[in-house]
Amino acid sequence: MAGTGRASGGVEAAPASQQGMRRQNLAVVMGAVAAHGPLSRADVAGQTGLTRPAVSSLVDELIARRALTEAETAPSGRVGRPGRALALNDRGPAGLGLEIGVAHLAACVVDLRGAPRVWRRVEQANAGRPAGQVLAEAAALGAEAESEAAVLGLWVAGRVMAVPGVVPDGPGGLVANAPNLGWQTVRPADHWPDPDAVPEPENEANLGALAEQRQQGRPAETFVHVSAEAGIGAALVLGGRLFRGARGFAGELGHLPVHPEGPPCPCGARGCLEQYAGEAAVLREAGLAGAGDPVALLTRRARAGDAATLRALDRAGRALGLALASAVNLIDPDALVLGGAYAELADWLLPPVRAELAARVTVRPWPPEAVRPSALGRRGPVLGAAWSTVHRIISDPAQLPAF
Amino acid sequence: MAGTGRASGGVEAAPASQQGMRRQNLAVVMGAVAAHGPLSRADVAGQTGLTRPAVSSLVDELIARRALTEAETAPSGRVGRPGRALALNDRGPAGLGLEIGVAHLAACVVDLRGAPRVWRRVEQANAGRPAGQVLAEAAALGAEAESEAAVLGLWVAGRVMAVPGVVPDGPGGLVANAPNLGWQTVRPADHWPDPDAVPEPENEANLGALAEQRQQGRPAETFVHVSAEAGIGAALVLGGRLFRGARGFAGELGHLPVHPEGPPCPCGARGCLEQYAGEAAVLREAGLAGAGDPVALLTRRARAGDAATLRALDRAGRALGLALASAVNLIDPDALVLGGAYAELADWLLPPVRAELAARVTVRPWPPEAVRPSALGRRGPVLGAAWSTVHRIISDPAQLPAF
Repeated sequence: MAGTGRASGGVEAAPASQQGMRRQNLAVVMGAVAAHGPLSRADVAGQTGLTRPAVSSLVDELIARRALTEAETAPSGRVGRPGRALALNDRGPAGLGLEIGVAHLAACVVDLRGAPRVWRRVEQANAGRPAGQVLAEAAALGAEAESEAAVLGLWVAGRVMAVPGVVPDGPGGLVANAPNLGWQTVRPADHWPDPDAVPEPENEANLGALAEQRQQGRPAETFVHVSAEAGIGAALVLGGRLFRGARGFAGELGHLPVHPEGPPCPCGARGCLEQYAGEAAVLREAGLAGAGDPVALLTRRARAGDAATLRALDRAGRALGLALASAVNLIDPDALVLGGAYAELADWLLPPVRAELAARVTVRPWPPEAVRPSALGRRGPVLGAAWSTVHRIISDPAQLPAF
Repeated sequence: MAGTGRASGGVEAAPASQQGMRRQNLAVVMGAVAAHGPLSRADVAGQTGLTRPAVSSLVDELIARRALTEAETAPSGRVGRPGRALALNDRGPAGLGLEIGVAHLAACVVDLRGAPRVWRRVEQANAGRPAGQVLAEAAALGAEAESEAAVLGLWVAGRVMAVPGVVPDGPGGLVANAPNLGWQTVRPADHWPDPDAVPEPENEANLGALAEQRQQGRPAETFVHVSAEAGIGAALVLGGRLFRGARGFAGELGHLPVHPEGPPCPCGARGCLEQYAGEAAVLREAGLAGAGDPVALLTRRARAGDAATLRALDRAGRALGLALASAVNLIDPDALVLGGAYAELADWLLPPVRAELAARVTVRPWPPEAVRPSALGRRGPVLGAAWSTVHRIISDPAQLPAF
């Protein structure tokens, strides 16, 4: 940044810089309509400080790129011509979200306004099957969703896939490790049937957190988003930005040691949170087998007052509270969000989680309501995956093709 | 940022913006000399991309503000006039660092080049004494250090004070809580004899981390800096920037629950890290009383092979390793740094810390050398306090008075 304010002289690259400026101004206009639309062209000029001729040229380009639509507004009763209002196009570019879970596949298409328009979910066991087979099935589900979206006038401009594993920083779309699927060093591009439709993998906890952030509308919040399916992951959103760690491995909450001498974990350590609050541990403690949808089964049993299930959920909640006490003491977040399966089990998990936090976060104020269930629950990661394409388009609409 | 690239029109505030640009360019020149000096004016132009007349005008102002000096260089053997080289002024503005420890007071003055020029350290028990009395003594020590610095031609342009406690974000210089001193809601300004010389308080672990960052010269590193004196604190430096948490309370490593059913902690919880690796716990376990300098005592006993001391340090190291395993699993840092008293005890602490990390950080690569003792040890916080004024001046030299 230090170099950007040079007052005089120096290397000049005027054409590149003007292109960059137009690109940025396209994003400024797009952002104004996304945040405050529908808006007239005059409103956009007022919101952005750009001149009306500049706004008109930028708006025309955004309409040509199918990012915005302009429609006649209803008569307002005011004197003058009927206005024309700009809005994000809900029949244009769209985002495809995919999700590979341990026991399901999901796909979702959202339009530029963020509304989910197509949903697909298939319950099936993916753990331990060849990655290529699972990815081919995900590709087929994604292609189905894209066809259905096309019928609605939408075309998919970007594809992101949630996976329950570690996705290191860097190009190439590598899933380094997804222990609950049995994946090691899997590159979706190596298995995807259509090379033009390969999705970018991303950790499901991270996507769940971004979905939660959008849903809450608190763009600067610092929070830890816990995501549980078969494993337990967490995403750290610090001051509104996803923090991925030095190498993309942040948020391995499931392997925090909560009882150091506890049972061995497949990861090689002992007493990890997953040994108390992971799906397999909770089912085992509740005396249940994991057939069908284990979250639905636990919910049913807990509602019925089954003592072993209630005991298992209380034990899971206490362990989760211990791990979260470490997270709060280290990170000092505004909030903790229970996502994924935990959101659906929140009635039983929240009381012991809050009790542990109250007992262990003592050197600062920590209101119990700062722990909340995610509003999106198990749909968070696939929605977050689909929304990430929308966010990318809104923050840089110049990446869309012109027609 | 979105609004900064407006290509045309909009609100213009030319005079303010030109002043802002000159201010930024002063910082650009200052930064170039700090990073690459000594430099000729021509070198500065080459480094920064500014024109030579612009550089000359900026350099003249920086010399007038006593931030830079320009001296004749030794003849280089090349043809032409002898050159003149710009360097940071080591007889000009300086930073005062103060430190209030549980058992000592310290002061340090560093010049603009970062070299410590004045040191003061007094061993004295501060815990439990009235805050006003301790602060008056710190002020006296600081005034002494400033007088000695004046003899060296230095004048103190900023004062920062390290405290072993929580300093929330926001203005007003409040120490919210320093349990090991017995302070609650102490505002140094309310007690400082000279209202023009009130230091800004800052958490000592944060300052130790900034000192470590400067010392290592790795400006983008993500690391956790553990600082131990009577209590245990940590600072999180994420991608080179200090992360203070949502409310300034991040880094309370000492209250991570390492053995959830362990001994009660004065904080109200049980089994906190401080109950195993805090000074009082280690001394108790080693069968020692805390007279004099407890770190020196532990070092002496450990060197002599005292079994109880070695056992106590091993137990402390294992607990510290457990807490740090949680930190690594959550944050994925490049490195962990043992600072403060832990740096001096590193010979005995590092092996058990590394053993716990090897056993518990299993889902990613974690090389043992990623845990290292701080190069600055117990001098880190007071040096970091003094250096923070130097950093501020280098990044905005326009804040210095013109002569």
